[in-house]
Amino acid sequence: MNLLFYLVPVAALIALLFAWIFFRQMMKESEGTPTMKEIAQYVREGAMAYLKQQYKVVIIVFAVLAVLFAVLAYGFGVQNPWVPFAFLTGGFFSGLAGFVGMKTATFASARTANATMRSLNSGLKIAFRSGAVMGLTVVGLGLLDIAIWWTVLKLVYDPSEAQNLVVITTTMLTFGMGASTQALFARVGGGIYTKAADVGADIVGKVEQDIPEDDPRNPATIADNVGDNVGDVAGMGADLYESYCGSILATMALGASAFFGDTDMQMRAILAPMMIAALGVVLSILGIYVVRTKEGASLKDLLGSLSRGTNLAAVLIAVLSFGVFYVLGFANWWMLSLSVLSGLLAGVIIGKVTEYYTSHSYKPTQKLAESSQTGPATVIINGVGLGMISTAVPVVTICAAILLAYGFATGFNFSVNTLSQGLYGISIAAVGMLSTLGITLATDAYGPIADNAGGNAQMSELDPSVREKTDILDSLGNTTAATGKGFAIGSAALTALALLASYIEEIKIGLGHIGKTVLEVGGRTVDTVSASIMDIVNYYDITLMNPMVLVGVFVGAMMAFLFCGLTMNAVGRAAEKMVIEVRRQFREIAGILEGKQRPDYTSCVRISTKAAQHEMIFPSLLAIIVPMLVGVILGPAGVIGLLAGGLGAGFVLAIFLANSGGAWDNAKKYVEEGHFGGKNSSSHHATVVGDTVGDPFKDTSGPSLNILIKLMSMVSIVMAGLTVMLH
Amino acid sequence: MNLLFYLVPVAALIALLFAWIFFRQMMKESEGTPTMKEIAQYVREGAMAYLKQQYKVVIIVFAVLAVLFAVLAYGFGVQNPWVPFAFLTGGFFSGLAGFVGMKTATFASARTANATMRSLNSGLKIAFRSGAVMGLTVVGLGLLDIAIWWTVLKLVYDPSEAQNLVVITTTMLTFGMGASTQALFARVGGGIYTKAADVGADIVGKVEQDIPEDDPRNPATIADNVGDNVGDVAGMGADLYESYCGSILATMALGASAFFGDTDMQMRAILAPMMIAALGVVLSILGIYVVRTKEGASLKDLLGSLSRGTNLAAVLIAVLSFGVFYVLGFANWWMLSLSVLSGLLAGVIIGKVTEYYTSHSYKPTQKLAESSQTGPATVIINGVGLGMISTAVPVVTICAAILLAYGFATGFNFSVNTLSQGLYGISIAAVGMLSTLGITLATDAYGPIADNAGGNAQMSELDPSVREKTDILDSLGNTTAATGKGFAIGSAALTALALLASYIEEIKIGLGHIGKTVLEVGGRTVDTVSASIMDIVNYYDITLMNPMVLVGVFVGAMMAFLFCGLTMNAVGRAAEKMVIEVRRQFREIAGILEGKQRPDYTSCVRISTKAAQHEMIFPSLLAIIVPMLVGVILGPAGVIGLLAGGLGAGFVLAIFLANSGGAWDNAKKYVEEGHFGGKNSSSHHATVVGDTVGDPFKDTSGPSLNILIKLMSMVSIVMAGLTVMLH
Repeated sequence: MNLLFYLVPVAALIALLFAWIFFRQMMKESEGTPTMKEIAQYVREGAMAYLKQQYKVVIIVFAVLAVLFAVLAYGFGVQNPWVPFAFLTGGFFSGLAGFVGMKTATFASARTANATMRSLNSGLKIAFRSGAVMGLTVVGLGLLDIAIWWTVLKLVYDPSEAQNLVVITTTMLTFGMGASTQALFARVGGGIYTKAADVGADIVGKVEQDIPEDDPRNPATIADNVGDNVGDVAGMGADLYESYCGSILATMALGASAFFGDTDMQMRAILAPMMIAALGVVLSILGIYVVRTKEGASLKDLLGSLSRGTNLAAVLIAVLSFGVFYVLGFANWWMLSLSVLSGLLAGVIIGKVTEYYTSHSYKPTQKLAESSQTGPATVIINGVGLGMISTAVPVVTICAAILLAYGFATGFNFSVNTLSQGLYGISIAAVGMLSTLGITLATDAYGPIADNAGGNAQMSELDPSVREKTDILDSLGNTTAATGKGFAIGSAALTALALLASYIEEIKIGLGHIGKTVLEVGGRTVDTVSASIMDIVNYYDITLMNPMVLVGVFVGAMMAFLFCGLTMNAVGRAAEKMVIEVRRQFREIAGILEGKQRPDYTSCVRISTKAAQHEMIFPSLLAIIVPMLVGVILGPAGVIGLLAGGLGAGFVLAIFLANSGGAWDNAKKYVEEGHFGGKNSSSHHATVVGDTVGDPFKDTSGPSLNILIKLMSMVSIVMAGLTVMLH
Repeated sequence: MNLLFYLVPVAALIALLFAWIFFRQMMKESEGTPTMKEIAQYVREGAMAYLKQQYKVVIIVFAVLAVLFAVLAYGFGVQNPWVPFAFLTGGFFSGLAGFVGMKTATFASARTANATMRSLNSGLKIAFRSGAVMGLTVVGLGLLDIAIWWTVLKLVYDPSEAQNLVVITTTMLTFGMGASTQALFARVGGGIYTKAADVGADIVGKVEQDIPEDDPRNPATIADNVGDNVGDVAGMGADLYESYCGSILATMALGASAFFGDTDMQMRAILAPMMIAALGVVLSILGIYVVRTKEGASLKDLLGSLSRGTNLAAVLIAVLSFGVFYVLGFANWWMLSLSVLSGLLAGVIIGKVTEYYTSHSYKPTQKLAESSQTGPATVIINGVGLGMISTAVPVVTICAAILLAYGFATGFNFSVNTLSQGLYGISIAAVGMLSTLGITLATDAYGPIADNAGGNAQMSELDPSVREKTDILDSLGNTTAATGKGFAIGSAALTALALLASYIEEIKIGLGHIGKTVLEVGGRTVDTVSASIMDIVNYYDITLMNPMVLVGVFVGAMMAFLFCGLTMNAVGRAAEKMVIEVRRQFREIAGILEGKQRPDYTSCVRISTKAAQHEMIFPSLLAIIVPMLVGVILGPAGVIGLLAGGLGAGFVLAIFLANSGGAWDNAKKYVEEGHFGGKNSSSHHATVVGDTVGDPFKDTSGPSLNILIKLMSMVSIVMAGLTVMLH
């Protein structure tokens, strides 16, 4: 069975190999005209400059936290000695994944634009393969990190002891905290950067001066395009690296505890998520190769081709998961596979619902566009309403998936005795959803690449037909990305649930560290090491009647809102500065609007860089400090309340923000297509206000929430030792 | 001790007597010129016509629910036979409170305008005394209903048996469900009515035609003024009736269970909230009489006078609560009084924070107004951010109050053994906050009356100085109402927590109904009747690791958003219809804008009435049906999850919506005062968009959430018998 493990590093290396192949293929293409090259170079430089600034801040935060963990580990002895190192590697690999993705994207955009001049199909191929570089890098680095730590820790802790398997897997979870921390900074910083530029550019460009998006006369255009790369590409890469590793690591930890005592079964349960992920890599590469169309393919062909790739990978992973559990010798192998299937189905449904609410092919967004006839206020009211209503089906779907995944894993026994197995079922469902990330992320990341290609085409003043084609590619990406986004959202909720259980596990280990080897629970005495999750729950009274838990729930729900408010205001403030600067340039630099004089792009780049670097610090630190404080003040019961409240409110809030933003974006496009007065009508201006408001909703605050939820869990897990010492 | 109880009906009658006296005094005043009378008559008729429509719908809903409860009680025997009747009286009295308040307000507005012509002080007196009619009617009817049911049920169930006291108090809780149901319809229906008219009137009037608020040329003006009465007055009356009774009833029920076994202490604990409420009535009347100023009083005098009234009542109730617990012979009398004090302090802090974030005397709203220089999009983004950030301090404050109120009541013993006493402490703190509702509601309700007086003055084309004075009164009201609003928000959270415990109590009674007299809990056998809250919690595994609980938390959080989304969209849709109608009238009826021709007011009134009546049904029914379904499908654990998730997310969401809306409103006023370009500048138009978006935030969706949270608890409590039967 140990041989099976070698599939994992092999899959990791295969992923990285193919990422490298696709990267080389893309680099062979021409970047086009000298202007195209020049603009691509501007964007590349801006993006790299920003990333350097961001990493500087992140390195300081990581250094401080690593020292703190070292003190807790070596000074107070309440933490595993490997934690500081695991934490650092997680952050490093997450940053690397974002860096590679962004590097690739900035090289790919001009090449995509250039290839699109030849044909839509050539453009698609380059953009999509470049997206695949990011997808495969994320999964490759993730699996590699997991494989390395598993190998190292198995050498240190004898894996034939049940407790050691728990220690190994929970230690590995802390590299998840590193990944989450870096991801949060990347998402928040990148999100603020891109939306400050985008909102600023839109307000002066589209609303006040009536010039199109990405027009070279707009001083904020380069900043806007840089932003797409640092926010949508680098941010998304770090984000999904965190999700991917988090789901696998949480499942490994749950596997070690669910089958505690039977080291053989523990080992199988630990291997299962790694195996599914490794197979997912192979299927993703297969799927990527399926995405190829004949020259002169119609739009429908292209769409079909993209969907074929992701669907094939998803269907095959569902089928193969039966094989994985069978080969690993699980008695309930087909039931566990049905848990995985429940997760995959939930992801597909959430994706479809998202599409229904946010695509202008359907009623809700069309109605939203219609309300633009009565001005921006009704567009905003109806968009907020639409987003809030759109949370219903995804939440009910994820609830059904939770109960089904749990039910299948336990034979629909909902008693406390099978709790761990049930949670394992939930967690492995999340792994299934993310296992084909190699290809789903490719369909997601390829959107911003196509978008940037369009920006390059516009700024290089290529024939408008090029921009039209890249727009088609972009909107194609939005449709195919829906499934991937459904998987990402759904798996975040499931993983966060699993992390609640991991927290309890870590509390147990913490009790061991402070020498509390037996616990009094409800009149019985139990060994701490063999205490069940329910024993710990009873020991700390983690019920919903405990005021600590209820206070925690309030604080958790509040954290989701506070975090969003801070990031939203950061965008608002930075965008105002951008507007003022752009207005100044139009006013003071003669000839910009006539295209006779180049605007000063760098001052806008500077505003975004400074704002992002400055504004990302407070909300991100809050996400780290509040769970620590709650642990210190309210104890484990308060922490569980915090995590549950944050998860409940944050998950729903994230869907609301994402869907409101998406619907506003597409309502604007719908009007631009000629409805209700078309471009430059008062309806159009009203929808531009909606789109602008939606920018930070869907690209800054919303996507950061999923990371926030998991980071708060990770911080709690890592700080559990201290919490136990104090309570 | 039983003699002390008679204070309660006496206080109720005193409240109603003074309400009647104030009403007569107000009616003696002149309504002013014939035009003023005519307009007041229009508003009165519109309001009554709408209320009739609303009550028709509510009566049908009540009839269906009463039949359902009768079937559960008499058919299945899983419910107390008094429930259908208690439910109906709660609804009836809540409706009556709203009706009286609205009737008074519609009589008072022209009279206030007329008196304001004499002096600011005369206007204040009439408006404030009319507000007091509503305040005293609400508390009078509330206490009366409580006193009647307590007297009747004590005759039926022998109160010297411990279990009977539990049965009496939990039965009385069901009249809380009647009050909540009617309150939700009133808030949602009234909120949709008023904001459809307001938004519609503003969009065409202020933005498109540049005519002032309440201009008689605007066809939606009458509908707007009717809306203020049915939404802000009748809706608020029903809302606070529900809060007031809910807090007292929940505390009575907790008192009966916290001291179970010692009937004497049970009785004292049941009497305490009634006594505090009764004293609060007397203090409120005292406070109302303190609000009187000499003729020619300055604005500062008026403000001081209003604050003096509410502060005096609040300070005295804090002092007298020591006396109440002492006289009732509580061993920990001064500690319990400190619980009350914690609640009062929290209310004051929440009120101040609300003022800080929403008043244009402070930075946040001034900054928001400043962002109008870069257009409506930044106003919306920053306003949403401001509202979300503003949730932090109130949530932390209420958390501190929860822990302190619990801690004082238990001598800071946070073990499960003192859980019931701790929850009793939390609940009695809520009673303290609402005990002076007689006067705090007066300061709240007087705002809309002054607002309407201004509307009447404007439409009757009185001298602009009258409008200026009523505007002063209105904004004065906004400042003084802050404390009352702080109490209302804070007490809602505390009461909702107490209702969680009442639900557990009701589950116990339900177990009795189905003949389950002993329970197996953690290996022990306990009598159902004497089972503790924790026994039931353990029996149904109501911990945060139970997937049913977690699924419940998700659904609860989602419900808060879904409900808001539905009501928000209802306003959006209705407002669009209103805009289209107002535009049509301006276009088709010649001479409206020149003031030569009266617009068709009634068609706008009809649009609002129809929209409110139609759109309130679905969201309100959802609030009733979802908790029932969750109980049936997920059982008691799921229900507790639902309530906790709904409370956590809903409470924070409500604060966000209220404060964003308030800040937008005042940012607009700040610009109108001449900042950033003043009236009719592009900054002004941007803030009008903000204000319009904020209307449904702060007056429809936000205030409905507090009721939603409690209604879901009440429904769960009433349906507990059925839930137990099925699980």
